[in-house]
Amino acid sequence: MTSPTITVWNEFVHERDSDVVADIYPDGIHAVIADALEEHGFETQTATLDEPEHGLTEDVLDDTDVLTWWGHAAHDQVDDHIVERVKERVLDGMGLLVLHSAHYSKIFKSLMGTTCSLKWREAAERERLWIVEPSHPIVSGLDDDYIELEEAEMYGERFDVPAPETLVFNSWFEGGEVFRSGCCYRRGAGKVFYFRPGHETYPVYHDESIQQVLANACEWAAAGENQPSPTYGNADPIEDIDTSDDRTVH
Amino acid sequence: MTSPTITVWNEFVHERDSDVVADIYPDGIHAVIADALEEHGFETQTATLDEPEHGLTEDVLDDTDVLTWWGHAAHDQVDDHIVERVKERVLDGMGLLVLHSAHYSKIFKSLMGTTCSLKWREAAERERLWIVEPSHPIVSGLDDDYIELEEAEMYGERFDVPAPETLVFNSWFEGGEVFRSGCCYRRGAGKVFYFRPGHETYPVYHDESIQQVLANACEWAAAGENQPSPTYGNADPIEDIDTSDDRTVH
Amino acid sequence: MTSPTITVWNEFVHERDSDVVADIYPDGIHAVIADALEEHGFETQTATLDEPEHGLTEDVLDDTDVLTWWGHAAHDQVDDHIVERVKERVLDGMGLLVLHSAHYSKIFKSLMGTTCSLKWREAAERERLWIVEPSHPIVSGLDDDYIELEEAEMYGERFDVPAPETLVFNSWFEGGEVFRSGCCYRRGAGKVFYFRPGHETYPVYHDESIQQVLANACEWAAAGENQPSPTYGNADPIEDIDTSDDRTVH
Amino acid sequence: MTSPTITVWNEFVHERDSDVVADIYPDGIHAVIADALEEHGFETQTATLDEPEHGLTEDVLDDTDVLTWWGHAAHDQVDDHIVERVKERVLDGMGLLVLHSAHYSKIFKSLMGTTCSLKWREAAERERLWIVEPSHPIVSGLDDDYIELEEAEMYGERFDVPAPETLVFNSWFEGGEVFRSGCCYRRGAGKVFYFRPGHETYPVYHDESIQQVLANACEWAAAGENQPSPTYGNADPIEDIDTSDDRTVH
Repeated sequence: MTSPTITVWNEFVHERDSDVVADIYPDGIHAVIADALEEHGFETQTATLDEPEHGLTEDVLDDTDVLTWWGHAAHDQVDDHIVERVKERVLDGMGLLVLHSAHYSKIFKSLMGTTCSLKWREAAERERLWIVEPSHPIVSGLDDDYIELEEAEMYGERFDVPAPETLVFNSWFEGGEVFRSGCCYRRGAGKVFYFRPGHETYPVYHDESIQQVLANACEWAAAGENQPSPTYGNADPIEDIDTSDDRTVH
Repeated sequence: MTSPTITVWNEFVHERDSDVVADIYPDGIHAVIADALEEHGFETQTATLDEPEHGLTEDVLDDTDVLTWWGHAAHDQVDDHIVERVKERVLDGMGLLVLHSAHYSKIFKSLMGTTCSLKWREAAERERLWIVEPSHPIVSGLDDDYIELEEAEMYGERFDVPAPETLVFNSWFEGGEVFRSGCCYRRGAGKVFYFRPGHETYPVYHDESIQQVLANACEWAAAGENQPSPTYGNADPIEDIDTSDDRTVH
Repeated sequence: MTSPTITVWNEFVHERDSDVVADIYPDGIHAVIADALEEHGFETQTATLDEPEHGLTEDVLDDTDVLTWWGHAAHDQVDDHIVERVKERVLDGMGLLVLHSAHYSKIFKSLMGTTCSLKWREAAERERLWIVEPSHPIVSGLDDDYIELEEAEMYGERFDVPAPETLVFNSWFEGGEVFRSGCCYRRGAGKVFYFRPGHETYPVYHDESIQQVLANACEWAAAGENQPSPTYGNADPIEDIDTSDDRTVH
Repeated sequence: MTSPTITVWNEFVHERDSDVVADIYPDGIHAVIADALEEHGFETQTATLDEPEHGLTEDVLDDTDVLTWWGHAAHDQVDDHIVERVKERVLDGMGLLVLHSAHYSKIFKSLMGTTCSLKWREAAERERLWIVEPSHPIVSGLDDDYIELEEAEMYGERFDVPAPETLVFNSWFEGGEVFRSGCCYRRGAGKVFYFRPGHETYPVYHDESIQQVLANACEWAAAGENQPSPTYGNADPIEDIDTSDDRTVH
């Protein structure tokens, strides 16, 4: 099997506006994520908000098995037309990784159908992501019962999302909150993984365990080459039944 | 506990355009559903597409515990602003029953995040809705292992919705298809039930078992009087932690 | 509707062996739970390990809508025959509340099919049970986003249970762990709720919020009066099909 | 990654007792399944009821990534000790495929916690297994929206199992019933797939689509090489908390 191709999308705003962020991600969060995924054997490309069509042209998406999405300050600058395009691809089988503050992205809210609200706090506090389902491929290769991050933004329950099909990580925060931090969904023919960590002012995406999870999630979210495509719409009966009834208003 | 108030919404188009439908539902599908729910002890009111704000004013929704939704021919005539209003109420705790062809309504697609597509056929064929979860309150009072409808429109898999939290009914069709016919969801603080039967040219809503399910579903979907309201947004730590870190771009 | 009858079962060992426990529960944990449920309007009766048939005779179970189960030191003294009897009743529709250390009870392990193992620590530490699903009746009447217990035994992930149908509470512990503390299951025609708090050396069952949850859970777990009873076994075809085939080894 | 090793278990009774079955499976159902899995690239071995320890010695299980289980006439001849051994391995990460009439096997009932009862009928009738989740790897490579079997034993709802984490197939039967035919579960660190087809008097396991599903399910159920192993039991606090409390009865 050829390696899946990952398109790493980033709004790429904070890295240009904030020295704190630029120090951690001089070439952007997307560059660090893309490098990590390449080291794990994926083909990668990046795309950012300020490119034409946000870098998410039909051609780019045609060549994307999994799209990762990081956004925070500029959710409302993402063109609705592009959001719709991405959504169609997800429902058609493209994988989607929704990262950290992208819980409030248009694409995630549209796929979830809820507000995706939560509690939050920036206090560089400790987070511990406990593994809930050891048999899920997304936690493969993790050495401990949890991933510990010394500095994290807190996200706390209630997280206003539909209950995930599989809850993979469950987070503890120093300040007293918990959060469903790794959530797997199916939407249409596509798979969606929400992964909580990733605040821009802490070096989260440099963490090897976080990179391992991202790589695992890309592998999980990519559609298999032979994934079936369901058919929809008006259908003739398969069995031999009487179809002479003509009471129809269609 | 006072009885929940149900608002029965109907686009009310076929009943005026088609003699076949008018014979079955002379005052509209909504009238038959509202009467049935009243007989089961609920307060009811009705609302239709052609009323101002489609009959779904702020006041009406303020007085609604559960909204039932029937639409088919005029989904795109429903104002986006009203859809958004209804969605906010659902996420805030109002129950929603999505009936039959309303699988393609704006409100349902928006709450599901998927296309809500399916296979369909009008052949007045037999449907049998098998009970999958006998312990769910929505099937209370059903005497048999299934509800049988002699004449139904076929809806077939794949039904492009997120997997329900609880699958209550599973339908068999004469022509060879199956369908997840009773699907329970939570969205925000609200509950949503999709119930498949209800084609306009067959007298489905006159069926006592179907009426029983509708009444059960209203009871289930209504928020309790003391349902908690989660808080969202920026949160102070509950534990005594160091909050002096000032690396923020918010 | 008549009020459900709750049978409160307790192994009733620690209260007799430990002064610390006896001070908190002089008449046993079961007495405090039964009193609380009565104040919430339920009919109650109690049963303990040392009674004949552990107090769970056919007659008692015939008169039980919901059974609550507390055990810790004497799981292996519970007769397998009685466990089997209780299990049959649950699968036949009786509700079951599994409390705290009863995660290791024979009845819970048998209904879950897993080890039901977890991490634990007795350090009188703080626990905070966050509400995950505000629309679930089990959290009705709770005033805050969480229940806080100043002194609790820690139970930590991974909790080796099947993922619950609905995760209602998610716990934070002072020492750094999280735990799925309120888990709803359907098993057969019955409903099962696992509720984490309840360590014998802290006065957990005297807490009003905990009592509220217990009452809510009894209400939720009780089968409705008209719950259907599925039929099983050899079945004649409903449709008119050819049944002349005689290749059978039954 | 090396190929997973599959152990194909069969009670191997009908093939010796019935000419009808022997004509279809002269070397046993296990031989046909093992051959098919080998053609799909797996290492395979077989084991049967009449072997010492039913062929499921510690050594054999040590060398098994996924166990497939077919039984019907002799469920109660399977030694409880071996069932317990298999269960421990599943909970420890071994995959398990439960085939057709093995719904009533001791191992499946023990892992599910329910009766696993259903309706059944032998009439060589048509079955159509509709794909419910196209994004699940178990349906990879299927060309149509369903698998059709011209001759099948009917299994009908209600199927008394816990709701699966993922429902992959949903079956239609000529005689009027439906059935959840492909059910995915996690139990402990292991994955379990129940797959309905496989009646002994019809040549179901010779069907290429059925073989494809079996191969896919083995791939899905096999634990990854780097799957984490959760730790359980008494745990020191990770955070610096006061542990001086000594109210304990442990």
